[in-house]
Amino acid sequence: MSKVQEFKIQSIGIIRTPFKSSTDVPIQSIKSGIQGYIELSEEFRDGLKSLSGFSHIILLYWFHRAKAPKLQAKPYLDSDLHGIFAIRAPSRPNPIGISIVKLVSIEGTRLHIAGVDMLDKTPLLDIKPFVPEYDNRPLATSGWLEKSLLSGEHSFKADDRFENNQNQ
Amino acid sequence: MSKVQEFKIQSIGIIRTPFKSSTDVPIQSIKSGIQGYIELSEEFRDGLKSLSGFSHIILLYWFHRAKAPKLQAKPYLDSDLHGIFAIRAPSRPNPIGISIVKLVSIEGTRLHIAGVDMLDKTPLLDIKPFVPEYDNRPLATSGWLEKSLLSGEHSFKADDRFENNQNQ
Repeated sequence: MSKVQEFKIQSIGIIRTPFKSSTDVPIQSIKSGIQGYIELSEEFRDGLKSLSGFSHIILLYWFHRAKAPKLQAKPYLDSDLHGIFAIRAPSRPNPIGISIVKLVSIEGTRLHIAGVDMLDKTPLLDIKPFVPEYDNRPLATSGWLEKSLLSGEHSFKADDRFENNQNQ
Repeated sequence: MSKVQEFKIQSIGIIRTPFKSSTDVPIQSIKSGIQGYIELSEEFRDGLKSLSGFSHIILLYWFHRAKAPKLQAKPYLDSDLHGIFAIRAPSRPNPIGISIVKLVSIEGTRLHIAGVDMLDKTPLLDIKPFVPEYDNRPLATSGWLEKSLLSGEHSFKADDRFENNQNQ
């Protein structure tokens, strides 16, 4: 019914983290507390005005080492096959990732952040302020994940099932 | 320092809402409860498997009627100029929007949703499950917005300052 529309986007900076491959990455950034930083491209410096007042920011980024998209996959936290829109795996029709990280400090165009869960050198697409009044959903429930998260029978570590190592 | 990388993305469906222009749109989707629906393109139908168990979904979409990006702007909720990365305005370097909506029901490739805050016919880029354990930040604080949200001296309605009407 709706015709396909194409759009172009570009990196506005790069995210530096300690994770050189997906096997290093914790699945839940919220628990890791691991630090990294953003190198924002100089031309976007003025866009940072008054960001420092926010405790958390939302990062949109490009899954630069994702395998080709598939419509169903087994996520890290379950042994069943789920639709790509029911999981957070990177091999998506548009491989855009989203993570909420803690904003530690800003030095010029370098943003120190904590709770990172993306690979080193991930291309950054956008920074948005995390606004608790818009973004928290305290009563939300999480379908297939609920059982898995409660059981504790998983490692909270990723692996290379979605990673294209040839792009390194 | 980091060189610019370009990427191509495409719509995977369309979001239908009652909002024909930005002056109709409530700023906080979480409060509006207004219903809309997604028409997912048929080819992505298999990607919906097991999504129905989630109470909320994260939508990434293209701000198809945003004006050209600017690095600083006055948001709806304040009279000061803020950096584009400290506000949620659509006129961004990569005009990608994000909203968390309630998933009401799924009929084939039509997803009924509540709490919409995007314009009618917005091109959809991705659907991700909202996972409370990843996505809630109960202790987050919101910088310049805090004062404004508490004061109640605003309308919670958008206007056309970021809208390109020539694209209609």
